[in-house]
Amino acid sequence: MRFNELEWIEYLRGKTGKSKSIFFGIGDDCAVIRQRGEWYLVTSDLFIEDVHFKLEEISFLNIGKRAAARAISDIAACGGIPRFVVVSAGIPRYVTAKGMKQVMRGIAETTRLCGASVIGGDTAGTEKLFLDVWVVGKTKKPVLRSRAKAGDYIFVTGKIGRLSFNKPFMPKLKEALYLVKNFKVNAMIDISDGFAIDLYRILQASSKGAVLYKDKVPVADSLKDIYRGEDYELIFTVDKSEPKIEMLKKKFYWVGYITQERRGYYFDNRGKKEQVKVRGFLHF
Amino acid sequence: MRFNELEWIEYLRGKTGKSKSIFFGIGDDCAVIRQRGEWYLVTSDLFIEDVHFKLEEISFLNIGKRAAARAISDIAACGGIPRFVVVSAGIPRYVTAKGMKQVMRGIAETTRLCGASVIGGDTAGTEKLFLDVWVVGKTKKPVLRSRAKAGDYIFVTGKIGRLSFNKPFMPKLKEALYLVKNFKVNAMIDISDGFAIDLYRILQASSKGAVLYKDKVPVADSLKDIYRGEDYELIFTVDKSEPKIEMLKKKFYWVGYITQERRGYYFDNRGKKEQVKVRGFLHF
Repeated sequence: MRFNELEWIEYLRGKTGKSKSIFFGIGDDCAVIRQRGEWYLVTSDLFIEDVHFKLEEISFLNIGKRAAARAISDIAACGGIPRFVVVSAGIPRYVTAKGMKQVMRGIAETTRLCGASVIGGDTAGTEKLFLDVWVVGKTKKPVLRSRAKAGDYIFVTGKIGRLSFNKPFMPKLKEALYLVKNFKVNAMIDISDGFAIDLYRILQASSKGAVLYKDKVPVADSLKDIYRGEDYELIFTVDKSEPKIEMLKKKFYWVGYITQERRGYYFDNRGKKEQVKVRGFLHF
Repeated sequence: MRFNELEWIEYLRGKTGKSKSIFFGIGDDCAVIRQRGEWYLVTSDLFIEDVHFKLEEISFLNIGKRAAARAISDIAACGGIPRFVVVSAGIPRYVTAKGMKQVMRGIAETTRLCGASVIGGDTAGTEKLFLDVWVVGKTKKPVLRSRAKAGDYIFVTGKIGRLSFNKPFMPKLKEALYLVKNFKVNAMIDISDGFAIDLYRILQASSKGAVLYKDKVPVADSLKDIYRGEDYELIFTVDKSEPKIEMLKKKFYWVGYITQERRGYYFDNRGKKEQVKVRGFLHF
């Protein structure tokens, strides 16, 4: 039997200490910590051979780049900028030192491009290659997935299903920073497991529903793309009375709105209601 | 071919960004970060099935307790107190949810006993059980392994070789706090790979040598104990002109002194010089 990721998170939540400086903690993309008037974001992301990638399908350099980008994307999703990165690596015998240097180069390059620094790490010999990337970030105002409000407009930063597995990508840090600086973003999440399930996570965490305009969802290829993971675009919600909402509609993709009733969500197909099946995947 | 832990650290060091707020970074027990006038310590520690423990020799509860204690011990070694703990877990199919709950209970209990809080984590399905425990701590004054001075007296907080593998232990946080508050501790390290190699690490990092009084080294059983790892006592050095040095000699074990020449270290066996072989183990 396996632990379900949500169970794990629930369990951790129950065990969280009562420190006053932990504001939101477990269950969001990042844990949010308040220290001396500053907001810090903390996140960790596992990237494991034969779970998240296969050695024959991705270069060592890109393993490093993706491992870093995936973790840093969580900081973007919380409206922050990354500062410090710590990398633990499990290294099997069949990975050469040359290969591991490429992995580290990838991590270091992506970290630097994102404005952060690798500050430490631990290693051990293991049977499969894995990386555990920790990121500490800062933000002026943490954005959570759980604060979507009824009536909020739902946006997505880019086309869905366009990103290839096994290729490097830049986390949407600039977009997140622009949004947090200029708009009251109520909720945000990065698409790691697919648009369909990650939007559903906002709805669940916020106890809300949603309606999507079927012809406005910006899929790269077909509507099936809403179930493809590893996208790393951002989904966010903004109060529709926001004065500059038209600017958002121009810059990003406006796909629908949040509703009060908490019963999944619907496509509005030119007036006809069609329930959206949430099937994306949990990692377990 | 395998990456050597020291090579990994050297490599990471080369890749560390030039952020002004990273003071010491890689190679010590913790990375040290200065933010808004506060010192933060960051460390991560891997605890992996068949590398660090065997499932048939240790309970799930104790896996959790040791994983947390090992990581928190690095914070003690830098003179700090732990604040936040983040846990990534690789969970194989053969570990039940009940087993994992015990692991988490162990982590949570030790974390709480040490005055910190578990704030987050990530999980994935893997072939072997592993935990990556990340700790953020604070300190008024970071203590590093690299600042031992010639003439410093060398102490150890407890008997060497007494701690059993596979059993829980408390990191020496109280001792570290007492030392940092009351004395000018120049260098400190926790014994993870054995007294012999961990003292050697202080000497290497500080470019110094040492002389040990052979009959003063507090071994539990025989002198071979200086090569046993997983001890988690602290080795520290203090200026010998320290006014309250006699108090330290009473409370802890005074074992020798630091010398200027950088050529390993010696036992002083009632006047006779015997070189100490450093053979402890690196994890690779």
